[in-house]
Amino acid sequence: MNFHIIKRTLGWILLFEALFFIVPLITAIVYGEGELVSFLVSMSICIALGVVCLIGKPKSEYIYAKEGFVIVALSWIVMSIFGALPFWLSGSIPSFVDALFETVSGFTTTGATIFSTGAQIEALPKCILIWRSFTHWVGGMGVLVFIMAFLPLSGARNMHIMRAESPGPTVDKLVPRVKTTAAVLYSIYLVMTAIQFVLLISGGAAPFDALNISFSTAGTGGFSIKADGMAGYSPYIQIVTTVFMILFSINFNSYYMLIRGKLKDAFNTEVRVFLIIVLIAIIAITLNVLLTPSETYDYSVGEAIRHSAFSVGSIISTTGFVTENFDLWPAFSKTILVILMFIGACAGSTGGGLKVSRCIILGKGALHELKMAIHPKQVRKITIDKRPVESETVRTVSSYLVAYIIIYVISMLIISLDCQDLETNFTAVAATINNVGPGLSAVGPAGNFAFFSDISKIVFIFDMLAGRLEVFPMLILFSASTWKKQ
Amino acid sequence: MNFHIIKRTLGWILLFEALFFIVPLITAIVYGEGELVSFLVSMSICIALGVVCLIGKPKSEYIYAKEGFVIVALSWIVMSIFGALPFWLSGSIPSFVDALFETVSGFTTTGATIFSTGAQIEALPKCILIWRSFTHWVGGMGVLVFIMAFLPLSGARNMHIMRAESPGPTVDKLVPRVKTTAAVLYSIYLVMTAIQFVLLISGGAAPFDALNISFSTAGTGGFSIKADGMAGYSPYIQIVTTVFMILFSINFNSYYMLIRGKLKDAFNTEVRVFLIIVLIAIIAITLNVLLTPSETYDYSVGEAIRHSAFSVGSIISTTGFVTENFDLWPAFSKTILVILMFIGACAGSTGGGLKVSRCIILGKGALHELKMAIHPKQVRKITIDKRPVESETVRTVSSYLVAYIIIYVISMLIISLDCQDLETNFTAVAATINNVGPGLSAVGPAGNFAFFSDISKIVFIFDMLAGRLEVFPMLILFSASTWKKQ
Repeated sequence: MNFHIIKRTLGWILLFEALFFIVPLITAIVYGEGELVSFLVSMSICIALGVVCLIGKPKSEYIYAKEGFVIVALSWIVMSIFGALPFWLSGSIPSFVDALFETVSGFTTTGATIFSTGAQIEALPKCILIWRSFTHWVGGMGVLVFIMAFLPLSGARNMHIMRAESPGPTVDKLVPRVKTTAAVLYSIYLVMTAIQFVLLISGGAAPFDALNISFSTAGTGGFSIKADGMAGYSPYIQIVTTVFMILFSINFNSYYMLIRGKLKDAFNTEVRVFLIIVLIAIIAITLNVLLTPSETYDYSVGEAIRHSAFSVGSIISTTGFVTENFDLWPAFSKTILVILMFIGACAGSTGGGLKVSRCIILGKGALHELKMAIHPKQVRKITIDKRPVESETVRTVSSYLVAYIIIYVISMLIISLDCQDLETNFTAVAATINNVGPGLSAVGPAGNFAFFSDISKIVFIFDMLAGRLEVFPMLILFSASTWKKQ
Repeated sequence: MNFHIIKRTLGWILLFEALFFIVPLITAIVYGEGELVSFLVSMSICIALGVVCLIGKPKSEYIYAKEGFVIVALSWIVMSIFGALPFWLSGSIPSFVDALFETVSGFTTTGATIFSTGAQIEALPKCILIWRSFTHWVGGMGVLVFIMAFLPLSGARNMHIMRAESPGPTVDKLVPRVKTTAAVLYSIYLVMTAIQFVLLISGGAAPFDALNISFSTAGTGGFSIKADGMAGYSPYIQIVTTVFMILFSINFNSYYMLIRGKLKDAFNTEVRVFLIIVLIAIIAITLNVLLTPSETYDYSVGEAIRHSAFSVGSIISTTGFVTENFDLWPAFSKTILVILMFIGACAGSTGGGLKVSRCIILGKGALHELKMAIHPKQVRKITIDKRPVESETVRTVSSYLVAYIIIYVISMLIISLDCQDLETNFTAVAATINNVGPGLSAVGPAGNFAFFSDISKIVFIFDMLAGRLEVFPMLILFSASTWKKQ
């Protein structure tokens, strides 16, 4: 284990975190908020510790895949702990576990909150609110990928780290150099965020609101600065947000292909399947809410389409924004939304969940097995976009599913000691491990995670990190054999 | 597709079904019940159709794996349709879909019932009750395996059928000949059922009750002839039943090994893991119900252990007998029971669920992947009982899990159009696809499946068959490419 490289990377993480604090710092200065001090203190701690970590020169720059996973897992934990400082120091969140939950929920782009009322959120200082939303933006594309785009690190190291931090079963380099790939991805991310911001402003959104919504949408996070989430905004703002939630769920490689004019590569199988799922889900939920008589809502056709599209976009992108309390919708619609939580977004996007490409690989694998049983002599290979899928990839994805289920089941067991409602428990774990945010019942759109015990919150923190980092880094970090000397 | 062989096998199925009707027929004669006529009519139909199917000589005795799956799926469907006749003809169950549900629930050893009150069940004639319980016994070990033990069929054909009908990821022949293996398995089954019957009688159970309980336990079915399930019987009878539910969940190969003195082979990894899970679950639930204050129950330590052991044995064996309404237990206990529903019994037993051996293979596969990520150069093979597990087996088991999840999700979606409670829907599908019987909430120990629409009931019928036949036969039967001419 190359401890020196790990220490150095953590040093960089702390320095970059200090850099990120500039956003809330400016906000505090603009609005003349006293919470400025908390951010200055947090910033100083990060700089001091960061510099200490960077002292000394590593004997070897080389790392193995193992170190890549450990670096990513530790980076995210360290980033979350120090990112929680301002919430805690400012007294906005008095309990440190709560502050950590909120920060992890931010960086992992989950958007689940420990604030028990919307009024509490609206009463927060603007610098705290913008930090909350900004953690989504930083976490969305991956902080290590961000650092890579700026620092001169060796290529082999970068690839291990990028593979461990990027969502999806496989990682493609857009261009030969990892560093350039990272820069391209972040540029697309930045430009798209800016476009959404401009569109929101043009539609009459207050600049501060537009900024928060854009950060939160881009990272597919879901933190909102309003007590009623996105319900109070105009239909125009809701529709723009719907479109951008869906856009940010698509593999960023597709945008690069689009820029380069490669339409066919841009609309690959994963993107097509994703868009078809979105369309079918919107139609099914629209019809279901329109045709099912209800005492709690009464939508026109237009409203039904708008709320259905918003909810589908919000859930499959794992953003978790809310315009309507879908917990009050009929069971069929709720079941669809729960299924979308698990499917999640495309690989290489800022969204969470299992990822559409993994679902495709798993589905094709099962179909392949079925065909093998019917015609054992016709051995075919699984292909996606006309390229064969390596059996190693299929195996890794299957193992991913199993590890995911095991974490899921253990989490549900621990939570059940705390909360007596199985629907709440099931969807709370789904909402955190898939980085969605809201679930159903007590953690539904009208609920929150405040009432859980600290132990449950720590389980959720683990689940959010495991979901964002795609299971293996967190398991490897806590595996004894990682730390054994060979 | 060798249609002739399929037709012939279905003919034998019908003749054997006529033979099975002798059990309720004798019961009707002994108790002088008029429902005798329904059984005689059903029997005559089966014999007539069966003989018609057996006319003509097949050109070729040979079948492929594909035909093996189709034969098994069709046999179970035909057997269920004709097995439902007496329920329907006698007027005991006026709706044919209901009668089919009850019969499929019987043969697949699920034990879910469409009778909406216990009083309705207690009012049934004894010949109908014994037929209900007897379907469990017939379905438990597999009717085709039974036929194989008696009929002179070719070995290759038998192996395909046995592989398709027997539960578990792989099938071991105990002795070189499939026919003899089938006979050995059925002998063990018969002897164990007889021992339980004798033990129940000795403990004061009425002979008719003891016979029904034994049939139901041996098949790990769960139909009960009492309104209060097993709650009204003495602790002795409950304890005997607990032990036998667990015994019937163990791979029957283990008993054969035990008889031959091969202790080490009898207590293989699967059996050991199974027993450890049972033990841990009993301890956890006992502590949980004792330590959680409740208004609905108040157990002594002895009662807590007894009810906990009974419920754990009943659920992991997928029997579904009930002494206490575990739906009223704390969430932790309920979550454990739901997890046990999915794990299920050992392969090669009469129980359902995913099977312990599949869980072990999946778990070891995921662990293997984790180790590969930490130390990529140390390629190890997955082993169970010191024998390597073929990568093909791991792949098939993974595909099994995926196909299972897909069926699960589609079932939940369809059911959700009918029932608005997600907990009910989730556990209703779990209870049918894993062949357990009771779930939670509206389908809990105090509930039943009567209130579902016919469409939902047909979904459950499919799930019960898919669960008992382990997914692939049912999918292959309904796959277009099975019926395409090559």
